[in-house]
Amino acid sequence: MNTCKCSKAEFATDMSVPVCTQPERTGLVTIEDEPIIGETPQATLQSWLTPNSLFYIRNHYSIPQWEADTEWELALDGHVDNALSLSLKDFRSLPIQTLPITLECAGNNRSDLEPQVPGNPFQNGAVSTAIWAGVPLRKLLERSGIRDGAVEVLFEGFDVGQPTPDEESQPYLRSLPIDVAMHPDTLLAYEMNGEPLSREHGYPLRLVVPGWYGMASVKWLRKISVLQESFEGFFQKDRYIIEDDDGGAIPISTIHVKSLISWPQSNTSLPMQSYVVNGMAWSGFAHIARVEISDDGGETWGDADLVGPRYRYSWQQWNFTWSPKSTGHYTLVARATDEDGNVQPLETRWNSLGYIINGVRPVCVEVR
Amino acid sequence: MNTCKCSKAEFATDMSVPVCTQPERTGLVTIEDEPIIGETPQATLQSWLTPNSLFYIRNHYSIPQWEADTEWELALDGHVDNALSLSLKDFRSLPIQTLPITLECAGNNRSDLEPQVPGNPFQNGAVSTAIWAGVPLRKLLERSGIRDGAVEVLFEGFDVGQPTPDEESQPYLRSLPIDVAMHPDTLLAYEMNGEPLSREHGYPLRLVVPGWYGMASVKWLRKISVLQESFEGFFQKDRYIIEDDDGGAIPISTIHVKSLISWPQSNTSLPMQSYVVNGMAWSGFAHIARVEISDDGGETWGDADLVGPRYRYSWQQWNFTWSPKSTGHYTLVARATDEDGNVQPLETRWNSLGYIINGVRPVCVEVR
Repeated sequence: MNTCKCSKAEFATDMSVPVCTQPERTGLVTIEDEPIIGETPQATLQSWLTPNSLFYIRNHYSIPQWEADTEWELALDGHVDNALSLSLKDFRSLPIQTLPITLECAGNNRSDLEPQVPGNPFQNGAVSTAIWAGVPLRKLLERSGIRDGAVEVLFEGFDVGQPTPDEESQPYLRSLPIDVAMHPDTLLAYEMNGEPLSREHGYPLRLVVPGWYGMASVKWLRKISVLQESFEGFFQKDRYIIEDDDGGAIPISTIHVKSLISWPQSNTSLPMQSYVVNGMAWSGFAHIARVEISDDGGETWGDADLVGPRYRYSWQQWNFTWSPKSTGHYTLVARATDEDGNVQPLETRWNSLGYIINGVRPVCVEVR
Repeated sequence: MNTCKCSKAEFATDMSVPVCTQPERTGLVTIEDEPIIGETPQATLQSWLTPNSLFYIRNHYSIPQWEADTEWELALDGHVDNALSLSLKDFRSLPIQTLPITLECAGNNRSDLEPQVPGNPFQNGAVSTAIWAGVPLRKLLERSGIRDGAVEVLFEGFDVGQPTPDEESQPYLRSLPIDVAMHPDTLLAYEMNGEPLSREHGYPLRLVVPGWYGMASVKWLRKISVLQESFEGFFQKDRYIIEDDDGGAIPISTIHVKSLISWPQSNTSLPMQSYVVNGMAWSGFAHIARVEISDDGGETWGDADLVGPRYRYSWQQWNFTWSPKSTGHYTLVARATDEDGNVQPLETRWNSLGYIINGVRPVCVEVR
């Protein structure tokens, strides 16, 4: 259940949006307590919409605290004609944009890698879908007037910490290329599934970058700066990168095509009959074109039915009626293809930081 | 159309009312305690998705109670080849269908009627939107084999009571024509916004009839019967009807085209500047084609922008940039037109039970 417990006594001075107390996180599978990191439980991966209290959390530093009388403001400055400063009230007076968007952590399924790598050992629950609402970032950038020569936009959160013990204390910082920042669907979101953002998910305002892995969607936004050069911070150059074959580093950006089997879960024993195998499939910017299912570990394939809402940025439900021919052990796998022709690989490309783990994932079942 | 009766003392200066989800029903505007009836608070009518705890509730009898060890089963019988009995496990093994659907109570806005009528005095919050998931009713009807001569399907809830003190105690009962029951989008839903149905909303299983007023979407389903004749029960023939011009009774069915202004609320006083007026528009089976806004009580109109998700059965967000030309009093009204050409009327057709109140609703604001 969604349990953002607010009472009027807890409202901040700016009455346009309430401050929420901590929702119960008991439903999440805990990966780390401080900073809070948790993944969505398996059973919830059957639902197209992820309830707020079960939406995966990957924070880098502790959740920032506001004094009750602190006025939140967002600054927009840098290589622009007019620097801006906006209150929540200002945001709520701008046209609203609502979009269903699936977010996935770049390290989702990291625990599946062999050999194992350091980092949060996510299973397959660091992916969730919400209906986000807010203001297109583009509207503010247009209002401020980006000058010629701008190349990136930098986002700074209110959360501060040391990314590693060797690094200085710093806010969470990530940048986007200008064209991504100017995309009409890149949102400054203040609402998640019809509710104000909870503290865990970036209250009062966060970036939501559709189609990109979650690290781009900076929470607790404090400042937006238009840059004339590329940003080189820790979470841009030392993390969220993947080695190429020549030892170079490729920054991680858009979500690669992937699927998961929601039901059955691995190591299930089932009576001999027909079943509806079901799950989700997603890809950063393209609709899912096809989901194929194999019950013999990838030797033969059949097409699943694509069902439910069909949105550019949100995952696609699928159903597959499966009639096992005999008793025995089966290895079920799902493979997604998107409308741009990207096919989910059979094998994940191992990498030392454990990102983009989108190879098909076997589910072993026994039919008795 | 009603003209605004704006008295200066009534103007509030707040631009919006804070809203936050409450874990229980405390966030709803209470209409009645037993049976529970409540409407969605004004501030939540800005959000495309209605959080479960703020989804309007219109129950006819007390919420049925289950013992923890009671096994729930749904019976499907009547004029069919094979009567069925299904458990929740059976439902979860059938292909899932997920749909965003707006439900509206037939008596929404009843308190706006003049002269007043009996019945729950809803303002404009007996309308809400959720993502519902479940099994198409059609799948079960096909499996049971409807026989020739069937005309309706009757739905019985576990909730029991006296519809009026003169009536006998009975379960809540409503029927649908066969073609509506067989529509592929008529759902037996067990999930609401990714969560199992709450007790208030029909746990474990309810009917959700897209495009129909809420009375058709029977909660706490116990039995489905295929009938060879029309059902004549209390909530089919004595309520949820509207008088025609000859004194006859027309049963209420599909949702009529309608809109609401989410912001500003009536009796708001605003500084002179531009604003984004926003709201929702919906119609039973058709997409919204157009929303027009007037700031002079309907003399002149301008087109709003349709924004956000666009679904056949769910409401449509709209934004309208409004630049008042001078200080003074304004009567804002919104008028929706759907793709079937239905236009929201300027005046509601008064009726003695207070249903289908879809006339435009003035919002009075002062610009200072």
